[in-house]
Amino acid sequence: MLKDFVKNPKPEKEELGARLREEREKLNGYQMRIKEAKLPVMVLFEGWGSAGKGSVIGKVIKNIDPRFFQVATMDAEPTPEEKRFPFLYRYLVELPEAGKFKFFDTCWMEEITDGVCRKKLSPEEYEQKVDSINTIERQLCDNGYLIMKFFFHISKKEQKKRLQALADDENTKWRVSEEDWWENKHYDDCMDVYERYLKDTNRTAAPWYIIDASDKKWAELQVLTFLNQGIDTALKNHSLAMPIRQNIFQLKKRPLLAEIPLDKTVTDEEYKKELKELQAQLRQLHNELYRKKIPVIIAYEGWDAAGKGGNIKRIAEALDPRGYIVNPIASPEPHEKARFYLWRFWNRLPKTGHIAIFDRTWYGRVMVERLESFCSENDWQRAYNEMNEFEKELTDWGAVVIKFWVHIDKDTQLARFTDRQNTPEKQWKITDEDWRNREKWDVYESAINEMIQKTSTAYAPWYILESVDKKYARLKALKIVIREIKKACDAKKTK
Amino acid sequence: MLKDFVKNPKPEKEELGARLREEREKLNGYQMRIKEAKLPVMVLFEGWGSAGKGSVIGKVIKNIDPRFFQVATMDAEPTPEEKRFPFLYRYLVELPEAGKFKFFDTCWMEEITDGVCRKKLSPEEYEQKVDSINTIERQLCDNGYLIMKFFFHISKKEQKKRLQALADDENTKWRVSEEDWWENKHYDDCMDVYERYLKDTNRTAAPWYIIDASDKKWAELQVLTFLNQGIDTALKNHSLAMPIRQNIFQLKKRPLLAEIPLDKTVTDEEYKKELKELQAQLRQLHNELYRKKIPVIIAYEGWDAAGKGGNIKRIAEALDPRGYIVNPIASPEPHEKARFYLWRFWNRLPKTGHIAIFDRTWYGRVMVERLESFCSENDWQRAYNEMNEFEKELTDWGAVVIKFWVHIDKDTQLARFTDRQNTPEKQWKITDEDWRNREKWDVYESAINEMIQKTSTAYAPWYILESVDKKYARLKALKIVIREIKKACDAKKTK
Repeated sequence: MLKDFVKNPKPEKEELGARLREEREKLNGYQMRIKEAKLPVMVLFEGWGSAGKGSVIGKVIKNIDPRFFQVATMDAEPTPEEKRFPFLYRYLVELPEAGKFKFFDTCWMEEITDGVCRKKLSPEEYEQKVDSINTIERQLCDNGYLIMKFFFHISKKEQKKRLQALADDENTKWRVSEEDWWENKHYDDCMDVYERYLKDTNRTAAPWYIIDASDKKWAELQVLTFLNQGIDTALKNHSLAMPIRQNIFQLKKRPLLAEIPLDKTVTDEEYKKELKELQAQLRQLHNELYRKKIPVIIAYEGWDAAGKGGNIKRIAEALDPRGYIVNPIASPEPHEKARFYLWRFWNRLPKTGHIAIFDRTWYGRVMVERLESFCSENDWQRAYNEMNEFEKELTDWGAVVIKFWVHIDKDTQLARFTDRQNTPEKQWKITDEDWRNREKWDVYESAINEMIQKTSTAYAPWYILESVDKKYARLKALKIVIREIKKACDAKKTK
Repeated sequence: MLKDFVKNPKPEKEELGARLREEREKLNGYQMRIKEAKLPVMVLFEGWGSAGKGSVIGKVIKNIDPRFFQVATMDAEPTPEEKRFPFLYRYLVELPEAGKFKFFDTCWMEEITDGVCRKKLSPEEYEQKVDSINTIERQLCDNGYLIMKFFFHISKKEQKKRLQALADDENTKWRVSEEDWWENKHYDDCMDVYERYLKDTNRTAAPWYIIDASDKKWAELQVLTFLNQGIDTALKNHSLAMPIRQNIFQLKKRPLLAEIPLDKTVTDEEYKKELKELQAQLRQLHNELYRKKIPVIIAYEGWDAAGKGGNIKRIAEALDPRGYIVNPIASPEPHEKARFYLWRFWNRLPKTGHIAIFDRTWYGRVMVERLESFCSENDWQRAYNEMNEFEKELTDWGAVVIKFWVHIDKDTQLARFTDRQNTPEKQWKITDEDWRNREKWDVYESAINEMIQKTSTAYAPWYILESVDKKYARLKALKIVIREIKKACDAKKTK
């Protein structure tokens, strides 16, 4: 890609000027159409140091109203705080919303190639991160994002000249770092690393565009031309259906909901005793996982009135409030709805050593969003794999991911609904929507069965909590949480 | 992909039966919708010997009316005749037409992996062929094809058992070849080769589906399920716009049509003398390229009445009729229109040692099809790169590709049109359409300029034939053809 890069002839000054004006106007004209079409546009600028990425970004954004774009400037090296999240996290929180642009002044490429060049990343880590990047880029494209990827290319000689010019000037001296000189000195080795990365990530939906950055105006024209062309293509498409990929993850066998016996109970005495013991154990473990920097994600789904709230409460009671958070997930806010559906969950990840409990989760995609047609059929069909990939990313990062389905039967739900209705202090807990959902019990049940079968991966299976006796369900949840955290702590000990 | 392949649990007999019936009916129901949507469906079956590909194809097609599908059975080894064409040729002539299925009982994978396993292909050849395959699969998907790729997977032990069972039976003994035993003996090495190929070609638009082929009915169910899912997804999409890729080929500088002086002439005497000499040279060269097995493709485009016919005639006169063909290209026949637009040109390639002259070409895509809106804007915008890739495939194969634009000015065309109109024996050469096209001279000129700029690659540039003096143009064409063929012959000599 870089080694056999074909420079297009740079146009003469007059033509260059004319074409620049034309492309600038075009981009200006696109911003309203992008807004109307609700198209989210990610523009990734990568390339050699001093190749002029920042300066071109500065030019490009002049054609867009500030309400419609943002620039994210990313360092090659994440901060210590950022390092406590999966490496994609700091980029993904920056996702643009539908109808807007986000320009990344270096993105996930630089972190990876820098890691390889400086020998901070092993070949296995490189492979894994490239896989993660290809996966997230595919997910974003499949979900309607336009991703334009530009690599700014200059020669070793040109780079040296520019660095020298900056260094020689008292006012710009500070802009040249040791790293810049290092890259120039190791230009050929870096080129090999960049070349490989570009090849490894040059996929159909989001191909690379190499920019001849030997001249600023010319670089700007190339970027604008490709960007406008990409926007034009993307605007032509409406709600694409993308291929459903084969499951490639080991799945655990889980029973259908109808097959689950719901007669499990526990006496009050047993409950009190066990609860105390288990909570004490969990409290202890929370310290250990904090020290070992293990992130834990506990995801709750279940029937209305199944007892999620009380169950979560018994877990949370045992935890140090500084080390956990409960994320209640309602229908998405407008700014959340305007983004990739997994965004608000990426955004709520715990950092290492912390616990995040989700009261309802990303699985809304294949339940309420599916059944209420809030997304297309193709969207929720693809989602099983997307969520398996998401959780794989989390467990590869080192997280413990525990998913609970809190289960009751239809009669129990009716009894609890009626009780809520008839008890003044519980009436806030029951709404018309609950009754409406109840009418759809059967279609929900079949969607939930499909969800449990398709997303009980070996690394993040579903656990069913039989919750006709809520106390039984609470003890079971505590036991599973303790067992899984213990396993992770022990694994980290033995290393 | 194969090594960490996750077998889904095979359903119990009864469920398997029920789901098979359901999927068979679904496929049956899809055939009319596929026809209506004009969706061409390619289904590629690859995998281990004795994995049961043929038997599953036999089952699958039972659900489709014979008017709507064909099966292409391909050998791993091309015939000597097929070897005289580019390796993709024998597969591409089999392309299904819009609205129909084509099932390939092994396709381009087997030829490549077989070549690697048997050490008939060098690593460089492997890389190049994988690139070719990724390119053509992308082109087909971009142009509306659904490509479903199945790999039939069985264990070494299972394969051995099946081969032994066939060999032990007098009636089936003949079905087990030396190659089958060889594959089983070298199972692990072959697995490595397959694994790599699957990974190298597992692209977004046409991902691989690995079929657990340990049981026939179960294999059939998996194939039907994925196939139906793929069809369902494809039917949801209508005229997608796909990304326009950056040009990656070295381009030659060419003047704009308006900049070309058209005052070049030659005297009758010079013409006669030179024509004779040049034709003699070309005759000689035709023998040489035949012996050296060099294929030659000469492509003519030009203004109406520019003198293409006479020009082609002077080339053809010098050639041995057994070794060349002139392909006049009119608007596509229905069966051609129903396929990938490059199909009718793939289909008319010369074999090695032969010459094919195209009187009008695949460039119709970016001229008449563009200007008359016979294809979408995205289609013709993508076509420059698709044609560059097509010609790259041809020159990599060893072909000489020469492209002529036969050029006159607007006044000259008017004079020739008028002359044709007024001369009874020439009247057949002029139609109302010619006059209509003439009115669009300016838009054609700008489309032609764009075409010449974007497709004058280093390996297959455009040559302008100034044809106000037709004789001058003929001599120039002969000289270029001679020079280019000579170059190729000399290059093959020195090897």
